[in-house]
Amino acid sequence: MTANPTPADKFTFGLWTVGWQAADPFGDATRPALDPVETVHRLAELGAYGVTFHDDDLIPFGSGDADRAKHVERFKAALKETGLVVPMATTNLFKHPVFKDGAFTANDREVRRYALRKVMRNLDLAAELGAHTYVFWGGREGSESDAAKDVRAALDRYREGLDLLAEYVTDRGYGIKFALEPKPNEPRGDILLPTIGHALAFINSLEHADMVGLNPEVGHEQMAGLNFVHGIAQALWHGKLFHIDLNGQRGAKFDQDLVFGHGDLLNAFFLVDLLENGGYEGPRHFDYKPSRTEDITGVWQSAAANMRTYLLLKERAAAFRADPEVQDALAVAGVAELATPTLNAGESYTDLLADRSAFEDFDPEVAGARGKGFVQLTQLAVEHLLGSR
Amino acid sequence: MTANPTPADKFTFGLWTVGWQAADPFGDATRPALDPVETVHRLAELGAYGVTFHDDDLIPFGSGDADRAKHVERFKAALKETGLVVPMATTNLFKHPVFKDGAFTANDREVRRYALRKVMRNLDLAAELGAHTYVFWGGREGSESDAAKDVRAALDRYREGLDLLAEYVTDRGYGIKFALEPKPNEPRGDILLPTIGHALAFINSLEHADMVGLNPEVGHEQMAGLNFVHGIAQALWHGKLFHIDLNGQRGAKFDQDLVFGHGDLLNAFFLVDLLENGGYEGPRHFDYKPSRTEDITGVWQSAAANMRTYLLLKERAAAFRADPEVQDALAVAGVAELATPTLNAGESYTDLLADRSAFEDFDPEVAGARGKGFVQLTQLAVEHLLGSR
Amino acid sequence: MTANPTPADKFTFGLWTVGWQAADPFGDATRPALDPVETVHRLAELGAYGVTFHDDDLIPFGSGDADRAKHVERFKAALKETGLVVPMATTNLFKHPVFKDGAFTANDREVRRYALRKVMRNLDLAAELGAHTYVFWGGREGSESDAAKDVRAALDRYREGLDLLAEYVTDRGYGIKFALEPKPNEPRGDILLPTIGHALAFINSLEHADMVGLNPEVGHEQMAGLNFVHGIAQALWHGKLFHIDLNGQRGAKFDQDLVFGHGDLLNAFFLVDLLENGGYEGPRHFDYKPSRTEDITGVWQSAAANMRTYLLLKERAAAFRADPEVQDALAVAGVAELATPTLNAGESYTDLLADRSAFEDFDPEVAGARGKGFVQLTQLAVEHLLGSR
Amino acid sequence: MTANPTPADKFTFGLWTVGWQAADPFGDATRPALDPVETVHRLAELGAYGVTFHDDDLIPFGSGDADRAKHVERFKAALKETGLVVPMATTNLFKHPVFKDGAFTANDREVRRYALRKVMRNLDLAAELGAHTYVFWGGREGSESDAAKDVRAALDRYREGLDLLAEYVTDRGYGIKFALEPKPNEPRGDILLPTIGHALAFINSLEHADMVGLNPEVGHEQMAGLNFVHGIAQALWHGKLFHIDLNGQRGAKFDQDLVFGHGDLLNAFFLVDLLENGGYEGPRHFDYKPSRTEDITGVWQSAAANMRTYLLLKERAAAFRADPEVQDALAVAGVAELATPTLNAGESYTDLLADRSAFEDFDPEVAGARGKGFVQLTQLAVEHLLGSR
Repeated sequence: MTANPTPADKFTFGLWTVGWQAADPFGDATRPALDPVETVHRLAELGAYGVTFHDDDLIPFGSGDADRAKHVERFKAALKETGLVVPMATTNLFKHPVFKDGAFTANDREVRRYALRKVMRNLDLAAELGAHTYVFWGGREGSESDAAKDVRAALDRYREGLDLLAEYVTDRGYGIKFALEPKPNEPRGDILLPTIGHALAFINSLEHADMVGLNPEVGHEQMAGLNFVHGIAQALWHGKLFHIDLNGQRGAKFDQDLVFGHGDLLNAFFLVDLLENGGYEGPRHFDYKPSRTEDITGVWQSAAANMRTYLLLKERAAAFRADPEVQDALAVAGVAELATPTLNAGESYTDLLADRSAFEDFDPEVAGARGKGFVQLTQLAVEHLLGSR
Repeated sequence: MTANPTPADKFTFGLWTVGWQAADPFGDATRPALDPVETVHRLAELGAYGVTFHDDDLIPFGSGDADRAKHVERFKAALKETGLVVPMATTNLFKHPVFKDGAFTANDREVRRYALRKVMRNLDLAAELGAHTYVFWGGREGSESDAAKDVRAALDRYREGLDLLAEYVTDRGYGIKFALEPKPNEPRGDILLPTIGHALAFINSLEHADMVGLNPEVGHEQMAGLNFVHGIAQALWHGKLFHIDLNGQRGAKFDQDLVFGHGDLLNAFFLVDLLENGGYEGPRHFDYKPSRTEDITGVWQSAAANMRTYLLLKERAAAFRADPEVQDALAVAGVAELATPTLNAGESYTDLLADRSAFEDFDPEVAGARGKGFVQLTQLAVEHLLGSR
Repeated sequence: MTANPTPADKFTFGLWTVGWQAADPFGDATRPALDPVETVHRLAELGAYGVTFHDDDLIPFGSGDADRAKHVERFKAALKETGLVVPMATTNLFKHPVFKDGAFTANDREVRRYALRKVMRNLDLAAELGAHTYVFWGGREGSESDAAKDVRAALDRYREGLDLLAEYVTDRGYGIKFALEPKPNEPRGDILLPTIGHALAFINSLEHADMVGLNPEVGHEQMAGLNFVHGIAQALWHGKLFHIDLNGQRGAKFDQDLVFGHGDLLNAFFLVDLLENGGYEGPRHFDYKPSRTEDITGVWQSAAANMRTYLLLKERAAAFRADPEVQDALAVAGVAELATPTLNAGESYTDLLADRSAFEDFDPEVAGARGKGFVQLTQLAVEHLLGSR
Repeated sequence: MTANPTPADKFTFGLWTVGWQAADPFGDATRPALDPVETVHRLAELGAYGVTFHDDDLIPFGSGDADRAKHVERFKAALKETGLVVPMATTNLFKHPVFKDGAFTANDREVRRYALRKVMRNLDLAAELGAHTYVFWGGREGSESDAAKDVRAALDRYREGLDLLAEYVTDRGYGIKFALEPKPNEPRGDILLPTIGHALAFINSLEHADMVGLNPEVGHEQMAGLNFVHGIAQALWHGKLFHIDLNGQRGAKFDQDLVFGHGDLLNAFFLVDLLENGGYEGPRHFDYKPSRTEDITGVWQSAAANMRTYLLLKERAAAFRADPEVQDALAVAGVAELATPTLNAGESYTDLLADRSAFEDFDPEVAGARGKGFVQLTQLAVEHLLGSR
């Protein structure tokens, strides 16, 4: 039996996850509000490492300065009591009607200026609470109509906003890095920077590109039918996996935010395998929603379920890698051979052109007939996942 | 009535499009092979500007040097006779079993070396025929199993291959630029660089990033539910729209390669609007397949249909932009306001923080209540598209 | 230019459509509540024929009898003043937390009993207001977990509920027919009776199957990537198209409820063609949502846009059918030939077996080589849709 | 460790599955043809129960009578030798160009007559080989253009064809039942009877509806984003699960035909649970394709993998059902309560109207606040699936 989660596992949760009151597009809230202080204590008891927040999760939108201070103090006290850390924070730039056409890319310039101010204010708090990562989910940056949004201008403004904020964070010495969170759609018909790829490309155009990376979310890529493991591998390859949102999704539909592993379980297995062996050192952050059918007992059960499944998958992945039969299958499949450069050391294209074994004397029929054993390798993974080996 | 297409419209077709014999995963070919020389003549008669090819479209895989020369000569003669140009060429790295696990990213190193040689050979021909763009569609670069492909090693090899080929082209003075063509899946379960975004991000990591751009295809992005117009806008924003593949697709299913406009017509309208007004000067390349139900008459009708629909949409888009009522609606929607930087000229974040009108005195309720008129703008577009205004 | 809508066009709207306050899963309402009386007057001015409602649209959930009567009286007065009719009504069985696990198929038996009572109560009102159709959208009848719902028991309960309600309506002499509205998912992870087909099959199992048909919605089928025109044709074929919900959707994503024609325009064209020529006589009901970006001006513009696009498509479809070139293309495609039975009059399988021309002397190569001209036919439709012929 | 498959497990395979030569839309075959006799022997060695076939799998299209007889004799001998049975057969009505616009619903009447003859001929063989089920997959019955196919006429012809064939089978005393296999698209843009639901509805319109049921395929429903377990439950509820095609699919994309369990593993778990406990007694038929990367060794490994995963899931499902903690969670979730009718025995709607506890005295707030524990139940399933309980 798998050990219980401990802070060493670096599991974190957003206040808005367990705190979701379960209103959805067709239904009212089914749960009362949850006090952030209560959340901190319960997460600590469950073995979590940290907690994350949007400004408005902690301090209701429109609070005066005195209220604001009170909310922050209570929260800090709870953190201190429990030892929970705040590795990440973010801004709510999507809930209030003012952001209905976006924040950094709203057509309305006033809204853009307001959004920047709202972020800066929360960056101060994030730094005060010790956050190292600041997430930008631009859920309202997009459109329903191709006539209504000049996408190139929008990208200019997106860049302008992030450049300014990067400068702000740098000047203040906050030690915070930014992580963009892509999503293809919902709530907007089409969201800008819809996938890991689009966000990575955009980052390259930023003035402080080095301090901006990604916070990919399982379900967001899967809503576009993309392989999340492939996406994370590419993000790692670019050195841009700054943070990660774990949850579950069942295909191309509305954003489900299921418990991690309650969606595509096979992909979740390979994801944990990659995170554990691929050099990612950050928090394992769960950005999920306890189903609308659950009461508060179900909320905490679902929080625990996320961590438990992660640990089980980690165990299974380790056994998979250690199995000699798997290692043989990997050899048959030539997986490691891909790490060998295609060219010999120092080989130029002229050398390659001169190598008759590469083309003139190469028999494509023979190479084409060679079996790769990929299916057997997958089957071994399935059997390990099922705990049957 | 719209004028007929002329070479000035820069319409181009792949040999493999009209030449598709209509074998599909469940059925045999329904049409005989088409002689590339015949294709050149027919396309010229229809008003096309150019023709494009994979090496194996022109010269059957495995041909000897003498046959190869003969095929090339006949093709060149046809081009000369008709005035058609060859603005783009590409390599078939997907049909032969040797590429079943990829070309530049095959686990098997021999295959990778062979693939590079096959490309170099065809680059020589592309240059000889005057091509300025060389497309890479990595349809076999991918996997069905997350166990069988080390994605990060694969990206290393992809980069290695493209760097070598860029060097080759540069040294030879071919004046050719590369254009990567993303696709999310099919024939592989998941293809590497699945979207415009992933490919743009990857390009930034290349040694000769400046000579590598994109060849996005309508249907490929739509297979992932992504807004093609948004993708093209981002590609233009990065200065990377080197070429484009126009066709039609009806949602997240197999790659349909329908006639341009026979899929998402509203998105096609905004696409033509963007291409005509967004600074793209390259060929309008149709990468479609005449349906399997068609004989050769249907093939040429379908080729003509692509061009005709493009010209009609161009006409509609021009009328849309010229309509004063549209211009009013754009003003209401604030579309142009997004081009105004969020900051004043010379404004720093300190200035912004000091601007009470931006935050302290800003009333989000008022701004949030403001109607944007986006639906009316879309409706005006629909009515222009329907030719009713 | 197309004439303005009149009641003869039978355009109807739900109170909840223009009345949507635009709260979504990530955002608060952007518009104030709309008085149903105001809605009736505005719809009448715009040329609508009727209005439809959920019980809770008209009478807030939990109202006392006196309030209830007052709400109904005001509404009836407005109908009388404007001449608007109420051809359809329905029940809100999804918004209140009590329905979080379904209504007729909730695991909790008390909830099921309550749901039946809520429906019966509103059936009385529907009859009083003259509705002929009563819609059942079972948005909460479903599950997120295959462990939590016994689907076969759920279908038993669904049937039990509808049988009871059919008996009630019959006994009371309400002259009301039922129309089931399928949807694949959202708000539940998977909804029971997810498509037109599943609902049609289910209806056959009902005691009063003859009085139960369908209310299909454009976007609901398109969320599953299904061809809405095909679905409507099958519903008509079974004699079960009792009502229809028109709107727009852009592929397999969250339920967008766009204006009719703002999604898949080509499919909308063929839908109007089918509705106008396929024997459907009922209301053209718009079940859409004015985008969250709109204020009240945008709300009424969007309502008008639905009707205007329908009328334009109707005009285009008529011109398409009347065009001699289209008629020729239909003949080439053999579309009408499909109405000829495969067997000759009175032919048995023995006769068919004896007909050597059907098999032994039939040349599949010749038949297989025959071009169908389907692409040209589609192109003619596109050109008519674009108003260019 | 799970026992090896035996004929008692009723595992069957199509000749076309292991025999697939791995040509795909973009690539040539990577494997040589497989002799059906060889297939029979190998499947028997692996523990299979039976084998199934399309006419053209066994007897090449266009074979003369002598060749035909020879092919059949060899096959029968192999069956006799190995003990393998043939529980199902089907017709290839999709590969030859003659079927490019459909078989039973081709616009071309000659093609429809030819198709009926082809089926009758193979029904004779199916009966001779002892098949009890005859599958109809109408992969070409559909369209790419809504203009080119009169769907209602097509359904008339579909019915006409099936009625005739049912009569034929009945008269001949073949003891064969028909099983329709739905699919949403591919190879046609849209296929008629696209889902389990549409096919069930259609069956009700047939003259011999009692002898026609379904052969649903995992991947086909998942291509439309539908929950396969829900679909199978509805098919069972209608008494129409005559046969089943097991395989794997990864979402809304081209038809992947992966090994069973290599797609949505969690859904596969609940599927096996339902099949084993839901009264289905027929063959567990694998309709998958060994990936194009595999050689003949991989082919047989993949065949074994299907059976092995099924047996593992069966074991896991049994443990899940037996676990007292699961039983407690099912009770909390009220899963069994749904089997209790909503009405009391003999209760009429009048009684229900008179029951104040059902409405007037019912407190929806209390019922709405009750937690269902669905997430915990799912988590228990995941942990059983992972073999960790």
